[in-house]
Formats: sequence, structure tokens, C-alpha cells
Amino acid sequence: MNDFSFSSPTKIIFGRGAELRVGEETAVFSKRILLHSGGGSAERSGLMDRVRSSLRAAGVEWVELAGVKPNPRVDLVREGVALCRKEGLDFILAVGGGSVIDSAKAIALGVRYGGDVWDFYEYRAKAESALGVAVVLTIPAAGSESSTSTVISNGELALKRGFSSELLRPRFACMNPELTFTLPAYQTACGAADIMAHVMERYFTNVRNVGFTDRLCEATLKTVIDSLPRVLADPEDYDARSQIMWAGSVAHNDLLGTGREGCWGSHGIEHELSALYDVAHGAGLAAVFPAWMKYVWSHDIPRFARFATEVWGVEADWEHPERAALEGIRRLEAFFAASGLPVTLAELGIPRDRIPEMAEKAVAKGGGTVGNFVKLSSSDVERILELASS
Amino acid sequence: MNDFSFSSPTKIIFGRGAELRVGEETAVFSKRILLHSGGGSAERSGLMDRVRSSLRAAGVEWVELAGVKPNPRVDLVREGVALCRKEGLDFILAVGGGSVIDSAKAIALGVRYGGDVWDFYEYRAKAESALGVAVVLTIPAAGSESSTSTVISNGELALKRGFSSELLRPRFACMNPELTFTLPAYQTACGAADIMAHVMERYFTNVRNVGFTDRLCEATLKTVIDSLPRVLADPEDYDARSQIMWAGSVAHNDLLGTGREGCWGSHGIEHELSALYDVAHGAGLAAVFPAWMKYVWSHDIPRFARFATEVWGVEADWEHPERAALEGIRRLEAFFAASGLPVTLAELGIPRDRIPEMAEKAVAKGGGTVGNFVKLSSSDVERILELASS
Repeated sequence: MNDFSFSSPTKIIFGRGAELRVGEETAVFSKRILLHSGGGSAERSGLMDRVRSSLRAAGVEWVELAGVKPNPRVDLVREGVALCRKEGLDFILAVGGGSVIDSAKAIALGVRYGGDVWDFYEYRAKAESALGVAVVLTIPAAGSESSTSTVISNGELALKRGFSSELLRPRFACMNPELTFTLPAYQTACGAADIMAHVMERYFTNVRNVGFTDRLCEATLKTVIDSLPRVLADPEDYDARSQIMWAGSVAHNDLLGTGREGCWGSHGIEHELSALYDVAHGAGLAAVFPAWMKYVWSHDIPRFARFATEVWGVEADWEHPERAALEGIRRLEAFFAASGLPVTLAELGIPRDRIPEMAEKAVAKGGGTVGNFVKLSSSDVERILELASS
Repeated sequence: MNDFSFSSPTKIIFGRGAELRVGEETAVFSKRILLHSGGGSAERSGLMDRVRSSLRAAGVEWVELAGVKPNPRVDLVREGVALCRKEGLDFILAVGGGSVIDSAKAIALGVRYGGDVWDFYEYRAKAESALGVAVVLTIPAAGSESSTSTVISNGELALKRGFSSELLRPRFACMNPELTFTLPAYQTACGAADIMAHVMERYFTNVRNVGFTDRLCEATLKTVIDSLPRVLADPEDYDARSQIMWAGSVAHNDLLGTGREGCWGSHGIEHELSALYDVAHGAGLAAVFPAWMKYVWSHDIPRFARFATEVWGVEADWEHPERAALEGIRRLEAFFAASGLPVTLAELGIPRDRIPEMAEKAVAKGGGTVGNFVKLSSSDVERILELASS
């Protein structure tokens, strides 16, 4: 096990009606905030009005900035930075999923920084201060409600980049599983794939003697695997929705990565798909992750055999661990497909012609390689994307 | 699943040499602290001197109060309260295990309270303010390094009582598994029993649809069950020591209890053994918990069958779930015995004559019952202690 440092200070307020507590919780930090959202379904469902009432009742004033799209754009972030400065707002409440939260975190960074906020995502600036961020969560997926990270897209440069800092961990997150009842099946499945990917990027490690976090990872994966089909069959299954929602936060608050070094290769590759083709992150991961596994499994057969037996219930064939290993990958892919997710680039509508370009970009941020379990060169990434194509 | 609120703000600094960072971490909070310890083995091993050097290097002044004993006493707490007031100390660093940490938390409460600190443990006072507490951990057991609770004994009244408040969660905890290499086998096993009990008190719940936390509980139990024999065979097995140490914190930082209602019946009963006979808490739990299980298992056979199959690898006999349930209890008891723990009151040197008195005291704090999975009356507790006797 590696040395580590860990804390998970985000206050999680979980259960029916959790969003009604947003006013009192916000008032602890600020009385004048930016209310940031997508604007669409949260507005139509009446959630935004409930949030506004709660803020009003707690004496919190707000200025609104809606319009966050999936794969949130740096343009809107810049708008948010300017708005916070102009209006003197010192706290940001994000109402939505990972895109809104990541956009809020980017604004929180930008307001306290002299240069352009994109500098952080080019690793040209260090985070020394940020506004506080809080969340009313509507989509269990990114785990951004309790994580340190933000991922933003730059349309002009066709780049999607991430940045992390302890300063960005939300102060609190209101999580009401009922708010996810109206999520379409496809978006629900994309969210589950993202959650599973967050666990798997940590699970496939070269660090030894991490049995405790291995088991915590397996527990989290099995929870999503058990709950997703129930939610797809009955979108208003509160219990299954709640399991996924809580698992989605624990998957990415860093607990599961304590003492181990994760990989993030599949995330790095997927970001290039999203950057060029604007696909849903979870859908891109469903296509990339099995292909990544097919490419790297022989690097550590015992680990893939464990994944197969402990997560997927594959029988332990000790004479042929490679069979178990491959069967685990097959089951993951079949699970994604059965959940209505694309498992090839073709299903995502992505042609092969820009694979070399995506491969180059994927490794460029890491100085020539991406990932850690196996350090992948651009030609490795090309082959993974070829595997994902067919 | 129940609604819940959760955060785990304690900063965990984990790994070799973690204690050397105590000065810089303390200096963030205070430059004039109480250094609280047992004084014995931490002094002899040189740990206290390393802590002092680190504090000195960071410009932190301290006043020392050593002498905490297992089942820490309110008398020493009162001394600590007076000392902090006299010397103007506003932060407490606990170097030791659960007893030292719990004593430090009690002092932290007392300094900011006008009356006698025991009032908190009689539920006559509410915690509105407390000094900050931090920890250098030497014994993985109580989980007090990241929990909200403190348990203190009152020799005069022959009472052992607990109190909880978010104010008491330590600011940081330095956890170096190497510091536990010299723990005697018996103390190591007692610690493991305490950790397992913290998980089991949460696991045996009447709340349904808690699959995620069920699996996290099982992951934590399996980690201790896998690691303890390795540590007893080789006390300097860093990897196994580290698994137990980290599992011990996660077991009691409240994550495993999110969305569920725990029981704490066995803890409540054990506190009466410790109060009268001053036995090690973990040893008392090893004797009480299997007896509690033998008394209550028929209340929820599916839950005990799950405990048996998922935690202990008992084969799932769907036609006779009661067989699996009982086999799980048998394996727990056998595991404790094989680890050198007492599994009867006789082995603890506790006679039967004061069983009625202990049973009365155990239920007195709860208005006539103790526990939640099954609400136990004093005659139930008597019968459990009789079961534990033979």
C-alpha cells in the first residue's frame, strides 16, 4: 500500500426533500451567490423554483447563470467569472449534474485568478484560492459533488481537459434520489458507466497489498451492477436510485483510491472522443473501457481474474486464470450493451478517420503517454480505438 | 434506505513516518497545545520524542499530561481541563490509542463548558463548543481518530459512558502502521475485535435496501478477518498492519452507517463489563458479541445468513438458511478464539454474581432497553450475559 492523505469534508445531505435544505445550508457560507444551472429539465420539473424559494426563505440573494451544456464550455465559464466579479458574488450554487458542477468549479477558480481561467486546464496556473461551491445534484454520474476535479471543454481548441484541487471540493451537496426519477434511461445508463469507470480507473493499479480498497471498489461496482437494471426496469425505484446516487459519490470522493495509484487511461482517451464528437462522457467510456481492457489484460492476469470472479461472479478457474480474466471483460461489455449503452465507436457515430489525431491528443497532455496501469503510447491508443471501433 | 447526513473531514495522513508531520499540521491550528498521552510505550519507543521534535521544529509550544489508562477516567479529564485553562491551551494533541483520544475529546469538551465535564456523559449538557483535537495513532481499534465519539469511565460511580458530537471529530490523524509493530498480540486482537464490532453494530439493522453499505461493511470485515492472522503470525507485516489500521478508521467514521440505523447493543452491554471489571473493551466485545448473536439471530435469519455467506464464506443453503446463520456465528466465535481472545466471561475472569446489576445498568441509559436491532430488556441482557458465561 502507498502512503496517502485523505479527507472527505463535503457535507452530504441525502434523502427525500434534501433540496429544501439548500437555503439554510447556503446561508452558512454566503448571502449573495451565483445560482448556476443547465436551465432545462431542472426548470421544467419545478426544482429551480423550490431552490429559489429555499434561498429566499434563508435570506440568500442570487444572480442566475443558466445554460450549461453537457461537456461544459469555457466560454460560459468566462461569462460566469465576469458575472461574479460584476455582481460581487462570493459563492456558487450548482443545480444539476457533473457538467454544471464542473462549470461552477471553473468559475470558482477563475474569479480569484488574474489571468484567463483556461490557464488552469493547460497546467499553466496553480490554484491558490477559489470561491466556495455547493451542489443540488440531479444526475448521479460524475461524482463531482464530492470530488476535487473539474473537466471543461474548449470548443475553439477542440480540447477537453481536467483540473483538480482540494479547494474545489464542494462545501455541501443536497442529494435527493427522487430528483433522478425523470432521468431518461440512456442518461441513467451513461451515469452508471461513468461511476463504474471511476471505480475501475482506481481498481486497475500496479500497487500491491491493497486488499481493503480492492474490496471497497468491488462493493461499489457490485452495487451499480445490481441497481442499474432495477432502475431501468422501474425508473421510480427509490431504493435502487438511492444506491446508485450514493455509490456515485463514494466512487469519486477519493476513498477508493487511498493507498493506491489509479490509471485514468480510459478517461484520458474518452476525453478526446467527447472533445471532437461531443458524445456523452459515460457513453464514450462504455465504448473505450472494454477495448482498453482487451488491450491491457495480459499485463496483470491475476488482477483481471479477480475482477471477473469478485465483481462478476465468474467461477474461479485456477488452472486457466486467463479464461476468467477474459470472461470478466466480456461480462462488462455485455452489461453495458444490455443497459442500452454503445460499446463501439460506430454505435457512437464516430468514424475511424480521426483516430490518429485523437490518439496524439490523448498522450500529448501526459508527455507522450496516457494511463498508468500500462503507460500507453499514441500507437497503443490507436490500437485501443481500433478495438473499440469494431 | 434512511435519509442521512455525512461528512468525514478528518485529514488522514497515512504511511511510514506520518508522525513526523505532526508539527506542521498542528501549527495550522495552534501554537500552544496540550500534549496528551498514556506515557508508557509511546515514551519508551521514542515516539514521544519524535513528536516533541516535530512540534518544536514547527514552533508549537506544549504542556504535557500523560498517564491515560485503558478505560480512561474522568478524574484525569478534569485534571486536563484545569491544566488547559491554567496554561491557556486551545488545542489538544492525543498520542496513543482510543483511550488517549477519548480522554482528549473529553478535555476538549470540558474546557469550553461551565459545569463538570461528566455532565455530558450523563446527557445533562449539550456540546456547543469544543477545543480542536488531533491524533497520532498508535493502536488501531476504537476508530476514535476519525469519529465523533468519546467513551469515559467514572470510577466513583462505576459507570462507563459515551458521548458524541460533530465538534469532537479530530482535525487530523497521523497514522503510521509501523507504530503498531510492537503492539502485543493480545492487544492487536482486541483492537481487531473492536473494529469488527463497530462494523457489526452497523451491519445488523432493521433498515431495508441498504445493499451498498452492506457490501462496504462486508468488505471491511473481510479485510480484518484476512489481515489479523497475518499480523499475529508476523507482527512486522507492514501491509497487513496497514490494512487493519485503515479499516479501523473507515469502520467508525460513519460511512458504513450512512442510510441505516445501527444497534450498539453489544457495545452497551460491554461497557458494563469494562466499568465493573476494567477488562479490555475489545476482549469484552469478543465475549459479548457472539452471545448477543446467539440470542437474537432468529429475529432476522436472512440477515444472519447473509453475514455467514458474504463475510465468512459459508455455503448458501437456501433450504436451511438457519443453518447458514448459525454457522456464521460459530465462525465468528472460532475466529475470536483462534486469535487468542476470550469468548466467555469466565475467560475474562468475570463471575456471574453481578450479571443482574450489569444488565440493569446496561438498559438504564436507554430508558429500559438497550440496542436497536432487537430492543433488549434487562432480562434479555441477563440471558445474553448467561450465554456469554459458559
